[in-house]
Amino acid sequence: MELNFRHKIGDKELATAIAQDYETGEVLMVAFINKEAYEKSVKTRKAHYYSTSRDEVWFKGEISGHIQKIHEIHIDCDRDAVLFKVEQIGGACHTGHYSCFYTEITDDGENIKENKNNIVFNPDIVYKE
Amino acid sequence: MELNFRHKIGDKELATAIAQDYETGEVLMVAFINKEAYEKSVKTRKAHYYSTSRDEVWFKGEISGHIQKIHEIHIDCDRDAVLFKVEQIGGACHTGHYSCFYTEITDDGENIKENKNNIVFNPDIVYKE
Repeated sequence: MELNFRHKIGDKELATAIAQDYETGEVLMVAFINKEAYEKSVKTRKAHYYSTSRDEVWFKGEISGHIQKIHEIHIDCDRDAVLFKVEQIGGACHTGHYSCFYTEITDDGENIKENKNNIVFNPDIVYKE
Repeated sequence: MELNFRHKIGDKELATAIAQDYETGEVLMVAFINKEAYEKSVKTRKAHYYSTSRDEVWFKGEISGHIQKIHEIHIDCDRDAVLFKVEQIGGACHTGHYSCFYTEITDDGENIKENKNNIVFNPDIVYKE
């Protein structure tokens, strides 16, 4: 079943893609996805996204080795978003965290709390090359 | 802390917003959010989004009563996405499902499987008036 790539960002037609740990339910990251990245994800069972900053299809983990093995694919009611339930190798975040959502906004909206326990690798080593 | 509303859709500056059940971790929905909707969410502790189809700030549950009480707010590494961990009253989806992601794409990408157990209300009644 095709997604509805209805989000026009620049001249691109995109849908939203969320990655979630298939075991714990932790939300790992959110990105955009285009038709090519979606089809590659479904075919290879490894998550691909569309990078709006680099303007290209992005095989998650291609450089770091931190790929996302897809266990389940869910789409939302209006088909403009996809949820990948994945086995995350290494960490999802380029900062070395397991999840990109390691920063919590505390009560008044001004302060933050960072989850240091979420750090799983050293980005200086992983992205050295 | 301010979000980076860097996704330009039409003439709007938006970030991505995900709602997740604060107890089970189930991903409920994903939408866009603008500065006003984000600030209202932080202040009222009830999720607000930005509807790109209606071009307006959207207080989730205003009509249906199916509001999302915010327990935690997390932002991602580049601050262009927010994750609300919420207590969902009723269901998140206008179709009557608890989560918008009730459709699973099965192995070959062509077939789907709908989670009937995810239905929690009758939209014909809830959205009647």
